[in-house]
Amino acid sequence: MGIESILTKIESWHDEMVACRRDLHKHAEPGWREYRTTAKIIKVLKENNIPFKYGHEIINPEFLWSYPTQDVLEAHQKRAIEQGADPEIIAEMKGFTGACAIIETGKPGKTIAIRFDIDCNDVNETTDPNHVPLQEGFASINPGCMHACGHDGHATMGLYTVLALNEIKDELCGTIKMIFQPAEEGVKGAQSIAEGGILDDVDIFLSSHLGMGYKTGELIGLTKDFLSTTKIDATFHGVASHAGMTPQEGRSAILAAASAALAMHTFCQDSRGASRINVGTIHGGTGRNVVPDKAVIQIETRGKTADIERNVYNRAMESIEGAAKMFGCTVETEIMGSASSADSDWALEPYINKAQARIPEITKYQPEDGFTGSEDATYLMAKVQEHGGLATYMGVGADIAAPHHNGKFNFDEKALVTNVKLHTAIVWEICNE
Amino acid sequence: MGIESILTKIESWHDEMVACRRDLHKHAEPGWREYRTTAKIIKVLKENNIPFKYGHEIINPEFLWSYPTQDVLEAHQKRAIEQGADPEIIAEMKGFTGACAIIETGKPGKTIAIRFDIDCNDVNETTDPNHVPLQEGFASINPGCMHACGHDGHATMGLYTVLALNEIKDELCGTIKMIFQPAEEGVKGAQSIAEGGILDDVDIFLSSHLGMGYKTGELIGLTKDFLSTTKIDATFHGVASHAGMTPQEGRSAILAAASAALAMHTFCQDSRGASRINVGTIHGGTGRNVVPDKAVIQIETRGKTADIERNVYNRAMESIEGAAKMFGCTVETEIMGSASSADSDWALEPYINKAQARIPEITKYQPEDGFTGSEDATYLMAKVQEHGGLATYMGVGADIAAPHHNGKFNFDEKALVTNVKLHTAIVWEICNE
Amino acid sequence: MGIESILTKIESWHDEMVACRRDLHKHAEPGWREYRTTAKIIKVLKENNIPFKYGHEIINPEFLWSYPTQDVLEAHQKRAIEQGADPEIIAEMKGFTGACAIIETGKPGKTIAIRFDIDCNDVNETTDPNHVPLQEGFASINPGCMHACGHDGHATMGLYTVLALNEIKDELCGTIKMIFQPAEEGVKGAQSIAEGGILDDVDIFLSSHLGMGYKTGELIGLTKDFLSTTKIDATFHGVASHAGMTPQEGRSAILAAASAALAMHTFCQDSRGASRINVGTIHGGTGRNVVPDKAVIQIETRGKTADIERNVYNRAMESIEGAAKMFGCTVETEIMGSASSADSDWALEPYINKAQARIPEITKYQPEDGFTGSEDATYLMAKVQEHGGLATYMGVGADIAAPHHNGKFNFDEKALVTNVKLHTAIVWEICNE
Amino acid sequence: MGIESILTKIESWHDEMVACRRDLHKHAEPGWREYRTTAKIIKVLKENNIPFKYGHEIINPEFLWSYPTQDVLEAHQKRAIEQGADPEIIAEMKGFTGACAIIETGKPGKTIAIRFDIDCNDVNETTDPNHVPLQEGFASINPGCMHACGHDGHATMGLYTVLALNEIKDELCGTIKMIFQPAEEGVKGAQSIAEGGILDDVDIFLSSHLGMGYKTGELIGLTKDFLSTTKIDATFHGVASHAGMTPQEGRSAILAAASAALAMHTFCQDSRGASRINVGTIHGGTGRNVVPDKAVIQIETRGKTADIERNVYNRAMESIEGAAKMFGCTVETEIMGSASSADSDWALEPYINKAQARIPEITKYQPEDGFTGSEDATYLMAKVQEHGGLATYMGVGADIAAPHHNGKFNFDEKALVTNVKLHTAIVWEICNE
Repeated sequence: MGIESILTKIESWHDEMVACRRDLHKHAEPGWREYRTTAKIIKVLKENNIPFKYGHEIINPEFLWSYPTQDVLEAHQKRAIEQGADPEIIAEMKGFTGACAIIETGKPGKTIAIRFDIDCNDVNETTDPNHVPLQEGFASINPGCMHACGHDGHATMGLYTVLALNEIKDELCGTIKMIFQPAEEGVKGAQSIAEGGILDDVDIFLSSHLGMGYKTGELIGLTKDFLSTTKIDATFHGVASHAGMTPQEGRSAILAAASAALAMHTFCQDSRGASRINVGTIHGGTGRNVVPDKAVIQIETRGKTADIERNVYNRAMESIEGAAKMFGCTVETEIMGSASSADSDWALEPYINKAQARIPEITKYQPEDGFTGSEDATYLMAKVQEHGGLATYMGVGADIAAPHHNGKFNFDEKALVTNVKLHTAIVWEICNE
Repeated sequence: MGIESILTKIESWHDEMVACRRDLHKHAEPGWREYRTTAKIIKVLKENNIPFKYGHEIINPEFLWSYPTQDVLEAHQKRAIEQGADPEIIAEMKGFTGACAIIETGKPGKTIAIRFDIDCNDVNETTDPNHVPLQEGFASINPGCMHACGHDGHATMGLYTVLALNEIKDELCGTIKMIFQPAEEGVKGAQSIAEGGILDDVDIFLSSHLGMGYKTGELIGLTKDFLSTTKIDATFHGVASHAGMTPQEGRSAILAAASAALAMHTFCQDSRGASRINVGTIHGGTGRNVVPDKAVIQIETRGKTADIERNVYNRAMESIEGAAKMFGCTVETEIMGSASSADSDWALEPYINKAQARIPEITKYQPEDGFTGSEDATYLMAKVQEHGGLATYMGVGADIAAPHHNGKFNFDEKALVTNVKLHTAIVWEICNE
Repeated sequence: MGIESILTKIESWHDEMVACRRDLHKHAEPGWREYRTTAKIIKVLKENNIPFKYGHEIINPEFLWSYPTQDVLEAHQKRAIEQGADPEIIAEMKGFTGACAIIETGKPGKTIAIRFDIDCNDVNETTDPNHVPLQEGFASINPGCMHACGHDGHATMGLYTVLALNEIKDELCGTIKMIFQPAEEGVKGAQSIAEGGILDDVDIFLSSHLGMGYKTGELIGLTKDFLSTTKIDATFHGVASHAGMTPQEGRSAILAAASAALAMHTFCQDSRGASRINVGTIHGGTGRNVVPDKAVIQIETRGKTADIERNVYNRAMESIEGAAKMFGCTVETEIMGSASSADSDWALEPYINKAQARIPEITKYQPEDGFTGSEDATYLMAKVQEHGGLATYMGVGADIAAPHHNGKFNFDEKALVTNVKLHTAIVWEICNE
Repeated sequence: MGIESILTKIESWHDEMVACRRDLHKHAEPGWREYRTTAKIIKVLKENNIPFKYGHEIINPEFLWSYPTQDVLEAHQKRAIEQGADPEIIAEMKGFTGACAIIETGKPGKTIAIRFDIDCNDVNETTDPNHVPLQEGFASINPGCMHACGHDGHATMGLYTVLALNEIKDELCGTIKMIFQPAEEGVKGAQSIAEGGILDDVDIFLSSHLGMGYKTGELIGLTKDFLSTTKIDATFHGVASHAGMTPQEGRSAILAAASAALAMHTFCQDSRGASRINVGTIHGGTGRNVVPDKAVIQIETRGKTADIERNVYNRAMESIEGAAKMFGCTVETEIMGSASSADSDWALEPYINKAQARIPEITKYQPEDGFTGSEDATYLMAKVQEHGGLATYMGVGADIAAPHHNGKFNFDEKALVTNVKLHTAIVWEICNE
């Protein structure tokens, strides 16, 4: 068929892709609960006879950060079916979301993995009448759930990239694994896949994000400087008591949490590089006249390197325990998510460069850029790099209507075609070196 | 008729009173929203041709602490009507709850005011099958609303005390004012009545609470040592920013609130007497990875005297402003309620003593006791004492099923008859000295 | 001789007493180092053949709070000798200060102990030319040492009270023990005497302080409401590091101490009575550009009762340990002194009352008053009360030039005669009941 | 004479230079009080007929950070004379230290400034018998004053560099200004010179430090990454009160300082680059039982850029004011020193490179290195760069006996000759391009 033909064919899929993305947008599902999304993907894979593994086959259950309780999972499965998911596929999924399509070319060659994330944000979609998804009728119908980071687009891109690669299978070599990852928001999902075995034989790992501050037509080949991060919840337990009559019998969990919050924000001076901490939320107490017996803080630590992040993390943990002790309280902490630091490999730049040159929609190519946020694709990158493989995380420009994670977010759907072309072309370049 | 006859007649009202209290319990209404409760009282007053003033006639609107918004008030008026309130009376109330029945004897004499409070708590009633209100079918049907402090009993006592005094009107002298006060919980309602004029000519003020740790049959004549108190909400505003990418642009409202909370808890050493502060609740932030731009703390200050309370209040205010400045934030504070300190007058003890001696149900009389909580009846006491009047706050024992403000609270309904007798007898003693 | 004769004789001692007090003032000695003072007292006792015990015979060495190091003690012994102390007596003292004169009457009767404290303050005496001790040539010649609390007067009063009682020995009965206590400032000395055995057979314990806010001529018979107290030093150890180049390697002892100070000041709300804490001093760090590896805070806790004080003490200790942990530091604490709460016994009031009536210089007698400070005489009072004895602490008025502990302090020397008369007369009243 | 001849001649000065450096070491003088040091330099300049300006002629008195009081200055002038300074020169200095030798070649050319700093540290020199300055008899005789950073060497190098350049004056062009700068320690002195006019016509600015972690024989041509810094003292004023009797009347300056210290350490997260703060020392309070009315903290802020430093500085100031307000205190702040960030100019590298190639003692040349400390030479560099001039700060290796600022510091005196050669050769290269 040839690379040019498939790129042209991808263009013809534009409307389908838009429809797919809008369907996912309308039925946004949060992390670990992407049942309808996964079932929709699996249905297409089955229809196209593309082999795949279910989520439960590719994860390591020891790393399920922030995993919901059984009743929550079941409620979402029920909703997925009500919103059109195939009940049989849902049953086959055994409660776990995500999947991995596998194209075996039958020819010797590299094993290439591509990853797209599929979960939505815990955000209420705006009711602003100017919001395009509202005007066009695809705003989320699931309260508190919104694709405000473009993963509806990512899931669509992943699906159509598999279809495209499957069409030119004969011109490729080695194996291609397309990972549909659950629970990227809050960096909860990647580590369970990194530790699940699917990447152990992978030579090249590709991943990307749309938007990220880049305009439609821009492409960043290699993203570097991801910050290592850990997400922690700390729950302080004090002793309730009437604040007027027996204050001496109370132990204020709020004061313990307040002290911990202040202390841990003092730990970010590090001459080795960027170090971050944030106490993003606090909730404590039951009433004005009761010494508060409970307070919960949500924390995240970050660092330019794992060592730097580990330092601020360890000190935060110490401060939490010390603060509890200071106020006669106890405390429990739970890790809610984590991601490692990572850098993309320069050795992949030539493939990306050649691929992008085939795509006229890409009008501005920048080989490399930094990103001081966090992403759990880094665990997957690190896992592949660990055994000598190469990895990249690309930035695929797309004009956006509002910042990522904002209720008014929307993106330029032209990015869908561009990105499917890009991944298809990169794989072709690697296989046809 | 004679004091003995009316006391006997009150006994015969027992079942009616129980039914009235249970009806109020079932339809519990929170502060400033006691529409059905007030309408029920007014209906009885009208039926008995007892003159009265509506809530809007007796309050000073400058002191409406924690007053709900118009739409909340309207929703509760609607519910009150749905639950059987007379729509005409609701209309006459003009949005305000509470009332004051006025018995003019036509003979010269003292003006005596009696106050009962009528609001419920923001508490969910237990679903424990052993809970008597559940077993007997009068548990609250209004979610989040429960008479967990006995004000359903108080309202009933007030109503039947008016009826009793009205029957022996000829044997009394001067004027009797029976105040049905809204919004005692959170000490929100009394000050608007204290400043509303109705007490300006009052010589003697009587008030009481059932339960309070005293058993059925016990009576405390004079309660002293109420703590002066102010309830404050402080809302800190910071600047949101991505905690990983641009932390330097954020201003953490959580850290400001945390610092204020710690600082203000250091201000309670006072050699003049008890001084209290409590940060009872804290809520801040929108997400783990965002520098939090908002945090709200609920505070209460208390003191053995107004001066002591004023000192800790002033210092708390300073610490709030200072803390906001420390972290580049701004802050607004709002007073949500307040009560003054107060002591009962010994000059009233002889009347109470003689009255209780007429009531065989009172088996243990204690002239005086201390109470280190807060109550906004103190504003009413202070207002009367200010111009030379006398005031008391009595503790009327009643066995209780669980502590006040607990979802399992219930009280021994024998206290209803006892308390109506008590107030009737005290007024008789004062008028027949 | 008769009580009247001895009271007259005491008057004749006025000039001697003034001279004695001024000599002690000029050679002020701090706690545990009152060598010259003790030697001067012992010399007089020896000259008058009054039996006595040395300090080392009456203390329990397990309770030597804030005890100086050997070289400091030796330097003060040397200075004492240079300033005129009898070297032989100094040698007999074996390094310990304080003494107890013992008058055995040979007749059956009560054992009465009287206590006077003899140490000076760590205060520099003023150089203000209007300061009387300067004008009259008896300002302290020992730098940093000043009798700014009147213990020069106390020591003199104790000595002349022994002489007076010795003269009327035949008219007394039982045993009289006159305790000259070291190290009252900082409440360091009394517990070692309380636990040293000398009070084990004592029936009545008398103690007093001059000044205390009372004017010349005033007498308080019974002082109550002493606060229980503990004095603690906490030393935080962190890790020093260059603040610009390797901040991540430092652990700031200043931040740990700061957090502990803030936290412990939040622990003083107690409905059982007065509760106090104070971080009085803080010293930390070596230079502006070094993460500080050491910080020391001086703390005192107080409470109306031992339980209340214990509560705030325990919470302070917890906060210290927690704060160290919070900032990756370690901490050591040391108890520097302590005193218990105490109340005087009403049963002693009649004796005091009768005694004061004999003394025309006492123009205003008040049986009882409160004192919300701390004094370690309380340990001695408690020890006697523990086995059923009676104790009092009296306030003997004296006009003062400046507050106690101020460099300009001086007192009206008329109080010397008054106080010696008072103690003599009380003992006489007890023995001649 | 030729560059080679003068380099050889410099070698012959080795013993003189060692003697000069040791004399300065023995008579170490702290910042703004380098009277003997300056007089010694001026004496040599006069003897060699080299024109110069006195300190008072080259400084801007508005920027005298941490400037001592008149009596302190006078005491040091007196000591300088006692230790051999020429009283006439001291008089000519009019109280100010530092000087600037000026060599006018009379030929057109660039104006080159070279700066050496001359003050000692506030450090006690070790008494360790193995310490070479002790063994060789040149340990500091001025208590608390020690050249523990090598500025004795710097002053010597400066002096001999002037002498060397003066000898080859005919082979040079333009003007050479040799600045002997007072008060580098604590970054107090440079800004007054930067703002004093002497650099306004300077085209090239050279400066250097010996040691800095580089071994004898190493040379760093261009130092970059100096952190901008400000040194601040904050003095909190509270209200003293007896902590037991009237705690409510006190305002604790210690708690205010503690809160400020904690808060300001939370302000160092900045994605633009390194940001630093340190509360290096704290001293507060007068006694354990007094609410502390004073507390002083010594702070320094740093930043990779002036903007970053300004941000943390401004936030620190806000936190100081807010903390004072929080605890009812007032506060004053004083700037004690400051330095800007700076980078050396690559355009100077060729001259340095050629110069070092002439010096066999330099065995390892590294064109550039980073330094995350602070130095006030940066103000001088920035002033020259501001009007288009070029500047560098070189690291001249020297083995050291202990870290800089340590009481056991000493350096390999071979660096003296090397450095004088280096500066001489660089100037020659510039003039003979």
